[in-house]
Amino acid sequence: MTAKGSNYLDFTLTDNDGEINAKLWDAKDIPALEFERFDFVKVRGTFVSFNDSQQFRIDRIRKVTPEDGVDINDYVPSACLSGEVMLEEIEKIIDDFSDYELKLLTRAVLDEYRDRLVYWPAAKGLHHAVRGGLLMHTLSILRLAKAVCSIYTYVNYDLLCAGAILHDITKVDEIASSQTGVPGEYTVKGNLIGHLVLGAVKVSEQGKKLGISEDTVVLLEHMLISHHGVPEFGAARMPMFTEAILLSMLDDMDAKMYESYSAVNAVEPGEFTPKQWHFDNRMLYNHGRSEDGGVELL
Amino acid sequence: MTAKGSNYLDFTLTDNDGEINAKLWDAKDIPALEFERFDFVKVRGTFVSFNDSQQFRIDRIRKVTPEDGVDINDYVPSACLSGEVMLEEIEKIIDDFSDYELKLLTRAVLDEYRDRLVYWPAAKGLHHAVRGGLLMHTLSILRLAKAVCSIYTYVNYDLLCAGAILHDITKVDEIASSQTGVPGEYTVKGNLIGHLVLGAVKVSEQGKKLGISEDTVVLLEHMLISHHGVPEFGAARMPMFTEAILLSMLDDMDAKMYESYSAVNAVEPGEFTPKQWHFDNRMLYNHGRSEDGGVELL
Amino acid sequence: MTAKGSNYLDFTLTDNDGEINAKLWDAKDIPALEFERFDFVKVRGTFVSFNDSQQFRIDRIRKVTPEDGVDINDYVPSACLSGEVMLEEIEKIIDDFSDYELKLLTRAVLDEYRDRLVYWPAAKGLHHAVRGGLLMHTLSILRLAKAVCSIYTYVNYDLLCAGAILHDITKVDEIASSQTGVPGEYTVKGNLIGHLVLGAVKVSEQGKKLGISEDTVVLLEHMLISHHGVPEFGAARMPMFTEAILLSMLDDMDAKMYESYSAVNAVEPGEFTPKQWHFDNRMLYNHGRSEDGGVELL
Amino acid sequence: MTAKGSNYLDFTLTDNDGEINAKLWDAKDIPALEFERFDFVKVRGTFVSFNDSQQFRIDRIRKVTPEDGVDINDYVPSACLSGEVMLEEIEKIIDDFSDYELKLLTRAVLDEYRDRLVYWPAAKGLHHAVRGGLLMHTLSILRLAKAVCSIYTYVNYDLLCAGAILHDITKVDEIASSQTGVPGEYTVKGNLIGHLVLGAVKVSEQGKKLGISEDTVVLLEHMLISHHGVPEFGAARMPMFTEAILLSMLDDMDAKMYESYSAVNAVEPGEFTPKQWHFDNRMLYNHGRSEDGGVELL
Amino acid sequence: MTAKGSNYLDFTLTDNDGEINAKLWDAKDIPALEFERFDFVKVRGTFVSFNDSQQFRIDRIRKVTPEDGVDINDYVPSACLSGEVMLEEIEKIIDDFSDYELKLLTRAVLDEYRDRLVYWPAAKGLHHAVRGGLLMHTLSILRLAKAVCSIYTYVNYDLLCAGAILHDITKVDEIASSQTGVPGEYTVKGNLIGHLVLGAVKVSEQGKKLGISEDTVVLLEHMLISHHGVPEFGAARMPMFTEAILLSMLDDMDAKMYESYSAVNAVEPGEFTPKQWHFDNRMLYNHGRSEDGGVELL
Amino acid sequence: MTAKGSNYLDFTLTDNDGEINAKLWDAKDIPALEFERFDFVKVRGTFVSFNDSQQFRIDRIRKVTPEDGVDINDYVPSACLSGEVMLEEIEKIIDDFSDYELKLLTRAVLDEYRDRLVYWPAAKGLHHAVRGGLLMHTLSILRLAKAVCSIYTYVNYDLLCAGAILHDITKVDEIASSQTGVPGEYTVKGNLIGHLVLGAVKVSEQGKKLGISEDTVVLLEHMLISHHGVPEFGAARMPMFTEAILLSMLDDMDAKMYESYSAVNAVEPGEFTPKQWHFDNRMLYNHGRSEDGGVELL
Repeated sequence: MTAKGSNYLDFTLTDNDGEINAKLWDAKDIPALEFERFDFVKVRGTFVSFNDSQQFRIDRIRKVTPEDGVDINDYVPSACLSGEVMLEEIEKIIDDFSDYELKLLTRAVLDEYRDRLVYWPAAKGLHHAVRGGLLMHTLSILRLAKAVCSIYTYVNYDLLCAGAILHDITKVDEIASSQTGVPGEYTVKGNLIGHLVLGAVKVSEQGKKLGISEDTVVLLEHMLISHHGVPEFGAARMPMFTEAILLSMLDDMDAKMYESYSAVNAVEPGEFTPKQWHFDNRMLYNHGRSEDGGVELL
Repeated sequence: MTAKGSNYLDFTLTDNDGEINAKLWDAKDIPALEFERFDFVKVRGTFVSFNDSQQFRIDRIRKVTPEDGVDINDYVPSACLSGEVMLEEIEKIIDDFSDYELKLLTRAVLDEYRDRLVYWPAAKGLHHAVRGGLLMHTLSILRLAKAVCSIYTYVNYDLLCAGAILHDITKVDEIASSQTGVPGEYTVKGNLIGHLVLGAVKVSEQGKKLGISEDTVVLLEHMLISHHGVPEFGAARMPMFTEAILLSMLDDMDAKMYESYSAVNAVEPGEFTPKQWHFDNRMLYNHGRSEDGGVELL
Repeated sequence: MTAKGSNYLDFTLTDNDGEINAKLWDAKDIPALEFERFDFVKVRGTFVSFNDSQQFRIDRIRKVTPEDGVDINDYVPSACLSGEVMLEEIEKIIDDFSDYELKLLTRAVLDEYRDRLVYWPAAKGLHHAVRGGLLMHTLSILRLAKAVCSIYTYVNYDLLCAGAILHDITKVDEIASSQTGVPGEYTVKGNLIGHLVLGAVKVSEQGKKLGISEDTVVLLEHMLISHHGVPEFGAARMPMFTEAILLSMLDDMDAKMYESYSAVNAVEPGEFTPKQWHFDNRMLYNHGRSEDGGVELL
Repeated sequence: MTAKGSNYLDFTLTDNDGEINAKLWDAKDIPALEFERFDFVKVRGTFVSFNDSQQFRIDRIRKVTPEDGVDINDYVPSACLSGEVMLEEIEKIIDDFSDYELKLLTRAVLDEYRDRLVYWPAAKGLHHAVRGGLLMHTLSILRLAKAVCSIYTYVNYDLLCAGAILHDITKVDEIASSQTGVPGEYTVKGNLIGHLVLGAVKVSEQGKKLGISEDTVVLLEHMLISHHGVPEFGAARMPMFTEAILLSMLDDMDAKMYESYSAVNAVEPGEFTPKQWHFDNRMLYNHGRSEDGGVELL
Repeated sequence: MTAKGSNYLDFTLTDNDGEINAKLWDAKDIPALEFERFDFVKVRGTFVSFNDSQQFRIDRIRKVTPEDGVDINDYVPSACLSGEVMLEEIEKIIDDFSDYELKLLTRAVLDEYRDRLVYWPAAKGLHHAVRGGLLMHTLSILRLAKAVCSIYTYVNYDLLCAGAILHDITKVDEIASSQTGVPGEYTVKGNLIGHLVLGAVKVSEQGKKLGISEDTVVLLEHMLISHHGVPEFGAARMPMFTEAILLSMLDDMDAKMYESYSAVNAVEPGEFTPKQWHFDNRMLYNHGRSEDGGVELL
Repeated sequence: MTAKGSNYLDFTLTDNDGEINAKLWDAKDIPALEFERFDFVKVRGTFVSFNDSQQFRIDRIRKVTPEDGVDINDYVPSACLSGEVMLEEIEKIIDDFSDYELKLLTRAVLDEYRDRLVYWPAAKGLHHAVRGGLLMHTLSILRLAKAVCSIYTYVNYDLLCAGAILHDITKVDEIASSQTGVPGEYTVKGNLIGHLVLGAVKVSEQGKKLGISEDTVVLLEHMLISHHGVPEFGAARMPMFTEAILLSMLDDMDAKMYESYSAVNAVEPGEFTPKQWHFDNRMLYNHGRSEDGGVELL
């Protein structure tokens, strides 16, 4: 929600159904600065028609408080599991690590971000750009990782999972958001550094603090800076060992599954989607044979 | 095994440990034409030194017969499971299809190739270029497919599996081999057409014969001609629906896992491999942390 | 022509000069379903002005019948020769083949498509996207082929011509159209398979039916799947023998000639065209020195 | 032929069948400097064996003189027509130009190069790298041009032919050779400027001298600097009008025909060639169906 | 400024602050043809509102004459130094050449263009697209060249400077403009030939006229046709000696400095620019730490 | 220098003139482990012929001590200035920074590496792969930076210089070497992380320790991870502000100048070099007009 204007206040109100322009004409009692972008508010007013478009005239507006007893997940697009539940599953995985260094280091970095992780989105406008999307994406990769390790038994499960948990965690520093989980703009360091190198810096910093061996830190740093797979997608190195190669492929797979499903479900069975930028401008086909008949993704 | 020469016979004998030049000097009793390339033979003789290199002087040579009671898998690089066992697991999967058309069609194509599938290799010189490698690669993808479908529940499991079972099956027509499972050269139609289009032609032919609906046939044909993902790797179309996208990624993942593991295990822990053509000329790193400590792959 | 609406009928009427919105207000006597997209109709009515744009008020409308004695080629953009004349020239070429297998096979596939070939367009929006354009394009390549074979005498003329006749023939299955020859959308199998592989499947099917030798079928299949020259333009294989290389170049040449001529003639002598997508976004130059002074192409 | 050494002379003698090392032991009467690289000589002597390789011991050696009555084309790989015959056919084409400026300008540039054109090769190691190859390649393109103009009647025939005649003519300045027509190294200006820009400079220079209109000169210059089609093959501009586009395609076609025919005929029917650099590293296939059964190209 | 219309005259008037539509209603005394595009005019009239947009009603209009004593640089975006001053600095550099041939040749070409060089812009819409921009860009490169030669003492200063002075000089023939220095469209030969090859042709022509050695001419021609560095940016050759490599890098550096500074200064400190086409679609960052605090560039 | 063997010691001795195999037969008094790779030794012995190749038989060998009074720069390829002198010039530049944070941070990182910087090479096999090459390359860029800032006065000189001093400093961690300055192999973290990200991690670490503002740290980190310019050369980000763009261009310029000069001087005037990998496989031309006549670079 944005507030600007002089003797009146001009808002953009958003919920699950869309957004509307709203005006508070009698703004003398409410300092504009009380509200910030992405605030979660309770509002009362009336819809009016203005110049062929609808507008909302605000009578009362205030921030939502815990006493209101409303669940923000009902008002913004959110992951299908709550952040707390997802975090618990992830922490259970860390607890089961047999590699002591990886357990210590992964836990420490996670703890730094846990408060914001609960609701942070995974992207600005691609896959998992919803409240809690970052954890949802992480969890999907961890589930894939478990299955893959049962097939390729030589893969180091702890290393793969540690990489999966940390690979996108500094997106919290890269993309602006708030407790609403609505993605905002890239931050300055998101643009200038990016979450791949920010992640490596963070792992190095915590590794030094905790006295983790350089061997372990370097492997993890490599997985973080290489997980986009190829230079043109931002990888500072291409993945150079099995777990780094796997992480990069599972990350890509989860993103592609999310996006193809979203795109395909937005058109009728028997139809093609518009050209998808993320799929080299291919159109995708809805064959109408999804197991779930194409239910809502989230 | 190759045989040429005039008044003597010149062979190249190969087993799991390497190859050696062999000569049969007293060749009057044994017509050269009795032996073909890739024959599995029993041989007796003595090693001799000739011009600084070793040679094998053959005393007796004949084709192996069932009565010999020897297992060819002990003499050539082979998949870790026997072809019959793998085929059984695959047929069990087909039996469980709930889509009747896919069950019928997949089974029919498989039946055409089953005799040779038991031992055919999956490639000339890349991943799974071993006896039974084609089924081994297929089975790995099917196992991945099962795991992935339990995570992305909307994926059409039958369609994905049908595609996986048929995606490489015409490699039997593309690459020459014999019962030894040692890969030979590409065939003329392997070079001029390739297993992607050969597969689509085969699916179309069986689909017509069995009266399968065009809808189903077209989906399967698309999965076959698109499974290499991008045009520069031979895909006639890029994958355009969820199961086609997944098949292409699982195929790539299984190939990359096989090759990275093979390459990494060929160097010492702490060392880098030579540049790997299949990994954009990257060197891969043996970090010495494989769960299995780097045992033999097969 | 599309018809929709409730108590009135809404049409888009198209002829050589452009298109107009048309309405039939008194629609109770005429069931909308009587008309389909691309129908060729006879219409009477008056032009009216409505909201700054012109509209046509339909008094009477019915499908054209043979008794009307009108030539559809006068009402839609069409090739300069009639479909029947072009087909005759092509069949004469087949009759002259000295290779019996190629004569049999080419004729059989042509016969399957001959009814629709007479008017089908060659593309949705690029070269030869006109009534009869598919035959026109085929014929131009055949004429080029004849000239080229007289210069490079070692080229197999029958093989080159067979490939030329069949290279685009499954565009009839790839792009929707009607007897008007106006190109519609890509079909589902046009999108998922494409006319290159559809052509190979068709040649294989007819080859089997007629007992043509695999050698011959494979050469022809290769020419069809390779005629776009490079993977990024959809070739499943790059052309690997002289006739396949030639076919791919002649196909490209005829398309480029059609498009450069159309683009250049749409601007004044001394001017440059807008950027042409099909020519790598180059602008083309009208030097005003065309032999025919830039007459209408069709 | 190269001559070096101190008290004896060391030659490399080459003819159509190959090359051999030759020595003149009694060299006191014959100053080495009398011979230059690529000289056409008459030699008498005997073959001797030396260190497992053959050598030729020269008894007498002198340059061939007109009185010898021998035809150099019998001793080096040469075009199938004599340079004089080809030149005559080309000049006939120029004589028939109806565009006076193009006739004047093309003739003038041709005259500058005619003496060397008679025997110059067209390349160092690709297509037409034989005696008279430059004219042979030019003539093939002109013959194609005539055929193409009869099909696309709007093409300006004079302009296309003028471009064809001049497009490679400054290869005479780009690649070193001699009257033998054996190609040598690139010259300094061949490397630093190249025959595309050298051609434009030459056309501009002659155009100024003859008072040709700038319009005509610019069109011709454009055809020369664009005839390699795309920047990565050295085109300073991509072709921007019909005749320039055609010239570039015909040039490519003639080169590809020459090279595919040479490569394919070097292997047995049913076999594939080694990877061909000039065909994106494809192997080409000898299908054994050439009209001429695969006779010698030259 | 453009003039068209029938009984009134319609102008587009431009100055440093923007452009406005202007009409001269009483046009009977002033023949439209008196004015050409880009004329520098003195105008008197009044601003009127018309259909929500502003218009200027012309009372009197005539071309500016020297007697008006006004400086055109005050009315169009111009380089920070006057053309005359920049030309003087450049000629001083030529005077100091110790290589006599380069001095003669560079001076001769410069003289051909000097009248128009004083005000010509360097581009249509990228760097230095201002009055005098061509000389400004040239001068910046010369100043960089001097600094670079003091560090890499082996560089041939005269050759580098001669290349720098001539590298873009035929942009005068490539882009239309007038004494106002406002860039117009590309000319026909600008599009068909381009300033790289036009420059080489010009150097060759003057070199012949002045009897300069071919060695020198070829080096200079190479620098001109290679200064865009890579084929996809129009270089007919990639730079092949030190001075050509340097010229290409200094040219690129000066263009990039101009454009990054312009783009960055158009946004607030702490903000990113929109995506910059010339910087591979990157956004650039204004860090607010420019030494000059971000003053106007010109 | 490498030492291996059982009852004798086998060395490879290297100096400015080349390398030779050396053997110490009577090795009982000298433990092999006393010597490490790259040790600087004093040796006495005799040359012997062995199997057609020369060998050196060692009589005495020991490490060089300061008392020997020999300068290592006389025995290995070295930069033209001593490490100490170059370091002094660089520190003088830091002292002159007016930005206090940059002065503090740059100095701190430099101090961590100063001991090894004095002799470290800049590369394994490309530019500046000599003793002291890393400082030599850094200093050249700083000198260019000074010149460039005097022309583009808005550039932040301190920021550009800080980036230049730190951009390659972690090459000390990336490439193995010793006091001899002879480059060895890439280290594990050199391969897995690379000096771009290692540099960012180091700057972040020192920035935190010294309490430098995040703004400053982020700018510097960006310059380090972007200085290779484009992703395919390892840049994790493309340069996004003026000083980052400049640093990347000056780095490239200094490398290219070093390499082109080295390559060109290795061939005779009038000759071309072999194809240069680092120059897109171009051959470079020695025009024989270097100001210094092509003296030794170092």
